[in-house]
Amino acid sequence: AAKRAIDAKTKPLGALGYLESCAVRLSVLQQSLQPEVTTTRVCIFAADHGVSDEGVSAYPRAVTAEMMKNFGAGGAAINVLGKANNVQIEVIDVGVDAEIEFVANVRHEKVRRSSRNFVREPAMTEGELQQAMAVGASAIKRAVRESVHAVGLGEMGIGNTTSAAALLSALTGCDALQTVGLGTGVSTETLQLKRDVVARTIALHGTRNANVSARECLRRVGGLELAAIAGAALESLNHSVAIVADGFISTVAILCAACIAHEEYRAGAAAIAARVFFAHQSSERGHALAIEAFSTLSRMQQRPLLDLEMRLGEGSGAALAMPLLRAAAAIMREMATFESASISAGDKAEQHA
Amino acid sequence: AAKRAIDAKTKPLGALGYLESCAVRLSVLQQSLQPEVTTTRVCIFAADHGVSDEGVSAYPRAVTAEMMKNFGAGGAAINVLGKANNVQIEVIDVGVDAEIEFVANVRHEKVRRSSRNFVREPAMTEGELQQAMAVGASAIKRAVRESVHAVGLGEMGIGNTTSAAALLSALTGCDALQTVGLGTGVSTETLQLKRDVVARTIALHGTRNANVSARECLRRVGGLELAAIAGAALESLNHSVAIVADGFISTVAILCAACIAHEEYRAGAAAIAARVFFAHQSSERGHALAIEAFSTLSRMQQRPLLDLEMRLGEGSGAALAMPLLRAAAAIMREMATFESASISAGDKAEQHA
Repeated sequence: AAKRAIDAKTKPLGALGYLESCAVRLSVLQQSLQPEVTTTRVCIFAADHGVSDEGVSAYPRAVTAEMMKNFGAGGAAINVLGKANNVQIEVIDVGVDAEIEFVANVRHEKVRRSSRNFVREPAMTEGELQQAMAVGASAIKRAVRESVHAVGLGEMGIGNTTSAAALLSALTGCDALQTVGLGTGVSTETLQLKRDVVARTIALHGTRNANVSARECLRRVGGLELAAIAGAALESLNHSVAIVADGFISTVAILCAACIAHEEYRAGAAAIAARVFFAHQSSERGHALAIEAFSTLSRMQQRPLLDLEMRLGEGSGAALAMPLLRAAAAIMREMATFESASISAGDKAEQHA
Repeated sequence: AAKRAIDAKTKPLGALGYLESCAVRLSVLQQSLQPEVTTTRVCIFAADHGVSDEGVSAYPRAVTAEMMKNFGAGGAAINVLGKANNVQIEVIDVGVDAEIEFVANVRHEKVRRSSRNFVREPAMTEGELQQAMAVGASAIKRAVRESVHAVGLGEMGIGNTTSAAALLSALTGCDALQTVGLGTGVSTETLQLKRDVVARTIALHGTRNANVSARECLRRVGGLELAAIAGAALESLNHSVAIVADGFISTVAILCAACIAHEEYRAGAAAIAARVFFAHQSSERGHALAIEAFSTLSRMQQRPLLDLEMRLGEGSGAALAMPLLRAAAAIMREMATFESASISAGDKAEQHA
């Protein structure tokens, strides 16, 4: 019905391209020919990583806490993009390695100060994993309660491209050469170190191919903010809210949620995919691979809405993509049809050619 | 100075990708480190084409006038996208083949009812060309007077992909196989007819390579709305307003303006390029070629902001891209710096690696 509705609009068939398939997907998700993406939000889950002790980032660990103050004060990219695009911003401390309870405009739901260094031991205990996933699930429940139609899942955490690369390797079996990228912009030397760290991590903890479950991969080599994002994506299955994946880290966490759903019940990955829109193609190396793995698992070919060579995180891509989803919903809801506007139809047979 | 300002913002160097170069360009254009893209507008120039008598479109000519009523009533895609993205819409009849003075929300600046059929004779007289270009120039002056920061240049006109293809062939010397595409979605048979029409047109009227000036190419094989867009782009040289190119037709008209500027004074094409942002890569065949020709002429590599496989026209891509320009300006204007937010710098040397 949604497909028929969009084809009746006053435009050549398919002329709005990918926007049309987004409109149809929003209609199906909301079970309505009047879909709405009016209220939107980006949640930024922040945490530190034990693995940053290995020197895998261009920035010191202290930057995670410093950026929380920047988020709180409204000076970060995501604050500016949220304001520009009328997207609410919610910053959630799920594991920053600092006492920052005094920082305003941040939700304090810290599970522990930083995950453990996964080169030596699992990043989280089972309890910590569950707690971090619950923080993400709560964020979705809160958004739904507050009538949010689309939630972007963003993150902040020095060291988290290393965690995401390790998790992507663990989930797909792809080696570190394919999953490790420049992150915030490391030197060639640090890139090599990052690859070694991920290779050693995978050698220690194993992969899904070796029968480690996706949930267990997340516990062993994930991070607290990655677990929160995975928890959020899984919780979205209980609602009609749309999920907007941001860049590399966000996508890997959502891929992990799809793997968990896939392992735990039939068609679980497809159910996640029905809710997920990829905001952008980032320039971080493993991102395209993560999207491809997600598409293969869910048997639904998806493409990112934007491709601007961004690699910032913070949910910045999600905030930039929200107007496109809002526009897609508006097209379905508000455009006239050939009939309602009394417009001569073209030769429909020709248009299919 | 703009480049230094964006590099001081609280993000890894270059992490906002193409958005950063847009922000720098807006700063240079407005000569301000506080650039603004607050008020935006899409102008839709509408006209009919004598060449539509050859049967080159999937839709009858009457659709141009019918769509004017749809624009006026707010039911077209561009109305919906404008409303969703807070972009003003201005519809200008520069040559629709119908008496539509009664249609509300349309500016009536008709030069004549339809251009002539350029398979047989020049599309316009010299006087008509000048008049149509002046309609576009007035639209820019009006926008500047009304404090608009960025103007999208859109169009509506059954048959105008044929005119744009002929103009692109005339400007670049590329043959009809490269410039003619499916337009609103024609059959394989009609596509062949369109190619023949363009080939015959070029044989009759010649190309820039054969010393026909760009202005004369526009007069011979352009359309009234293409002339208006070219006139608008040329007028923008007198102001600091940003121009947002839409799809194939809009881009070819702006390319023509750049060719005219190039022929008439040194560095004219570069001056146009400094003002132009390409909203999107459309799926119409000649669009990529037109962008490439523009980049080559102006010696400035540009890429479209969006790539959503759209091919609607009406300025729809421009309306979708406006939030990205608005966001780019906001980044420059509002983001904190490492210094102002007291954030530890990374190893800057490493970030350049």
